[in-house]
Amino acid sequence: MFSFVPEMKITAEIITIGDEILIGQIVNTNAVWLSQQLVKIGVWVSKIASVGDNSTHISYSLKQALLSNNIVIITGGLGPTNDDITKKTLQDFFKTGLKKVDEVENHIKSTFKKVNVEFLPVHEQQSYILGNSSLLFNNYGTAPGMWIDENEKTVIILPGVPKEMKGIMSDFALDKIKLKYKLPEIISKSIVTYGIPESTLAEILKETENQLPDNIKLAYLPSFSSVKLRLTSVSYDLNFINTVFENCFKEILQKIPTANIAAIQDLKQEEIIGKLLSDKGKTLSIAESCTGGYVSHLITSVSGSSQYFKGSVTSYSNSAKINILEVEQSTIDNFGAVSEQCVRQMAKGVRKKFDSDYAISTSGIAGPTGETPDKPIGTVWIAVCNRDKCLTKKIKLKGNREDIIKNSSFTALEFLRQLIISE
Amino acid sequence: MFSFVPEMKITAEIITIGDEILIGQIVNTNAVWLSQQLVKIGVWVSKIASVGDNSTHISYSLKQALLSNNIVIITGGLGPTNDDITKKTLQDFFKTGLKKVDEVENHIKSTFKKVNVEFLPVHEQQSYILGNSSLLFNNYGTAPGMWIDENEKTVIILPGVPKEMKGIMSDFALDKIKLKYKLPEIISKSIVTYGIPESTLAEILKETENQLPDNIKLAYLPSFSSVKLRLTSVSYDLNFINTVFENCFKEILQKIPTANIAAIQDLKQEEIIGKLLSDKGKTLSIAESCTGGYVSHLITSVSGSSQYFKGSVTSYSNSAKINILEVEQSTIDNFGAVSEQCVRQMAKGVRKKFDSDYAISTSGIAGPTGETPDKPIGTVWIAVCNRDKCLTKKIKLKGNREDIIKNSSFTALEFLRQLIISE
Repeated sequence: MFSFVPEMKITAEIITIGDEILIGQIVNTNAVWLSQQLVKIGVWVSKIASVGDNSTHISYSLKQALLSNNIVIITGGLGPTNDDITKKTLQDFFKTGLKKVDEVENHIKSTFKKVNVEFLPVHEQQSYILGNSSLLFNNYGTAPGMWIDENEKTVIILPGVPKEMKGIMSDFALDKIKLKYKLPEIISKSIVTYGIPESTLAEILKETENQLPDNIKLAYLPSFSSVKLRLTSVSYDLNFINTVFENCFKEILQKIPTANIAAIQDLKQEEIIGKLLSDKGKTLSIAESCTGGYVSHLITSVSGSSQYFKGSVTSYSNSAKINILEVEQSTIDNFGAVSEQCVRQMAKGVRKKFDSDYAISTSGIAGPTGETPDKPIGTVWIAVCNRDKCLTKKIKLKGNREDIIKNSSFTALEFLRQLIISE
Repeated sequence: MFSFVPEMKITAEIITIGDEILIGQIVNTNAVWLSQQLVKIGVWVSKIASVGDNSTHISYSLKQALLSNNIVIITGGLGPTNDDITKKTLQDFFKTGLKKVDEVENHIKSTFKKVNVEFLPVHEQQSYILGNSSLLFNNYGTAPGMWIDENEKTVIILPGVPKEMKGIMSDFALDKIKLKYKLPEIISKSIVTYGIPESTLAEILKETENQLPDNIKLAYLPSFSSVKLRLTSVSYDLNFINTVFENCFKEILQKIPTANIAAIQDLKQEEIIGKLLSDKGKTLSIAESCTGGYVSHLITSVSGSSQYFKGSVTSYSNSAKINILEVEQSTIDNFGAVSEQCVRQMAKGVRKKFDSDYAISTSGIAGPTGETPDKPIGTVWIAVCNRDKCLTKKIKLKGNREDIIKNSSFTALEFLRQLIISE
C-alpha cells in the first residue's frame, strides 16, 4: 500500500463539517476526492476529521490542525441556512470581520435571475467573505470559497456541495498550493493482474519490494478475482524518476507471468475487454439470468461500447430462456435452469440472435430464496463462446444477493477475457 | 436533517487508522457503519478522525478524543504485519503490558488448521491483548477486539476488516455500551415522496417543522426525483414517543398530497415497484437501449423479483431493436432510435415477447459521443405500457455518462409507478 514517504514534507489536514456524516447518513466522498488530489500534487494528508455543525468543535479542530500541518482544508457549512455556521465560527477564530465582494454578489444575482428566484437579504450575506481571506470564485454555485494565508500556513474554506468543492479546488486552489509550496513530483504506474492471489504476488515480488528505495512504494490493491499493483515514486529529482523508478517498474513487470497481466495501465475489467474487442473489431452479446442485467450494465458503462456491444437478453423466466434464447424445454426439464447445459444453450442462443462474435451467459442462485439441496445459494454457471467453441465453468460464491450478482458478473467478464486472449 | 439533540448526552469519537484512507484509496465505510449503529442506540458521534499508521498521531488523537467524549472507538492496525502498530502504540499510551488469551490462541490455531496454514510465532502474537483490556472475541477473524474501562470512559479497539469490525460490535460491544451507559430511545419513521421538490415540501411543512419539540427532528433526504422525509425522536420517555412523536408524524403525513407519497416506510424505488407488482400479481419486462441493463439490474437487485420480473432485452444495436423487439425499420429510418415512436414500439415489442402485464423501454444519448444537433447528450425517451395503453415522455438530463444512465433509469421506474397506481 502506498504510505507516507519522507519526501512528502508538506502536510494537510481535511476538516469536513456537517452532522450528516457523523450519523452515517452520507459517505465522506469529499474527503476521498480531496485526498486523492492532494496526494497527486505531492501533499501528504496527515488527518481527516469530520465534526458536526458546532462552533466549539470546529474551532478546536482547526486549532489542532494548524499546529501540525502546513495546509488545512475546511469544507461545509457555508450555505445560507441557520445550521451553516462555518463563516461565523471562523470570524471569531481569526478575530476578523467580513468584506463584501461585488463580483460574487453580481454572480449570485444573475444566477437567481436565470432561475427566476428573488434575491433576498438572506442571499446577500453569501457575497461576503472573511476579512483576512482572498476570494476563491465559485463557478458552480453561490457560496464563495476562501483562501487564508497565515504566514507559511494556509487555510482553505470550501462549500460542502461536491460539485462546487471540486470545481473551486480544480479551478484555483490546487494551482495556488503548487505555487506557494515546493512539492515533490509524484509518478504512479499500475499493472492489473488476474488469476494470481495477492499472497503469491507478494511472494514473487518480495525480493524486489525489499530493495525498493524509501521513496518508491508498491501498493497491492486487491478486488474480486483481480489484484492491481501500483508502483508510486515521490521525488524532487525528475532524473531519479526517469531512471530508478522505470527500472523498478520493469523489474516487477518481468517477474509477473505474462498470462496473468491484464493491463499495464489503470483500467477497469470492462474497459480492458472493451479495448480487446475494439482492437480486434469483434462484437459481444450477453444472456443473463442471475446477474439480471449487471454484466450488460458494466459493459455499457464504458463510453463507445456501442461499437462492440450488440445487446443482451435478461431471461429471468424459463419461458424467456426457451422462447427468446432457444434453450430446449428438455434441457430445463432434465438439468434445470442453473446447469452447464442451460448456460451453454443460452450463450449459443444469444450469440446467434445478435449475430455477435462472442457471447457470455450466466445462470445461478443469487438468493436469499431459490436454493435447492444440490444447488445452494451462490451456485452460478457461466458460459462464454465465440463462433467456434463454448467454454463453461461453475463457481460457488459467498455473500448476500448483491455480492453474488456482482462477483459472478466480474468472473464472467474475466472468463471472456481469457477466451479472447487465448485465440 | 437529523442533527444533534440535547437528549443525546453520551458521545463517542471514532478513530480509524490506516494510510489507505488518507490517500483516498478506500472510502471510510467503517466509520459510516459505526456512526449508524451508535446513533441507533442513542450515542452521539461528535467526531470521526482518520489518521495514518503513525504512533504519534494515534496517541495524540486518542488523548484529544478522551478529553471530550465518553466512548472512543479505534479501528485498524491490529494485523500481524509491520505497519500494524495500534497494539504497540496503545501499550505505551496506557503504560500496560500484554496478556495472552488461550481462548484466542486456540481459535487462531483451529482457523489456520482449517485452511492448512502453519501456525507461526508471528501469528501467536495475535493471541495477546492489552493488559488493561477485556476480550471482545472475534468470530470472523484472528485479531481479537479489546474493551478498556477508563473509569467512566470506554475505549474499544477493533480490527479494520469491515466483516470483523461489524461482527465484534454486533456480537458484544453494542450490548456492553447499552449496559454501561443510560441511553435515550431513538425512533425514526420515513415517508418516501416523488414528484414534489424539496423546497415545496419544506414550504408545506414549515409550520409543523417550526413547532416540533427540540428532541424531534425532521430530515430531508433528497435523491434523484425523490425526497425521503425521516422524522426522528430522541427521548428517555417512551410515553412521549408513543404520543407526541406519533402525532407529529400523522400531522406531516396529512400535509403531503397523497399522490406524492410512494411509501410510508424506508423503501427504495425498485422495492416499492416490486411491492406494487407482487400485491397486484402482475409481471414486468424491460427493453433498454441507453440504460444498457441498469433498469433490469435495479429490478433484479430486489430479492424475490423473479416472481414478477419476466426479463429484459438490451437492444444496443438497431438490428436488435428490429429483429428481437420488432421495431419497424421505417421507424428507425424516419425518426431514429432515440424517438417517441421507437421507445413506443420497443415497449410494446418487449411486453409481447415476454407476455408481461407491464413494460418499460428507454432510448437516449448517454454520451460522451453520439449526440446530434437536435438530440444533444442527455436526451432520453422513455415509454411505459400495460396491456391497454402506452405512455411516453422525453427528458433532458445533465451530467456524465453514469449520471445519465442512472437518472434515466430512476425516471423510468417512477414513470412505471405512476402508471401502475393510476389504474
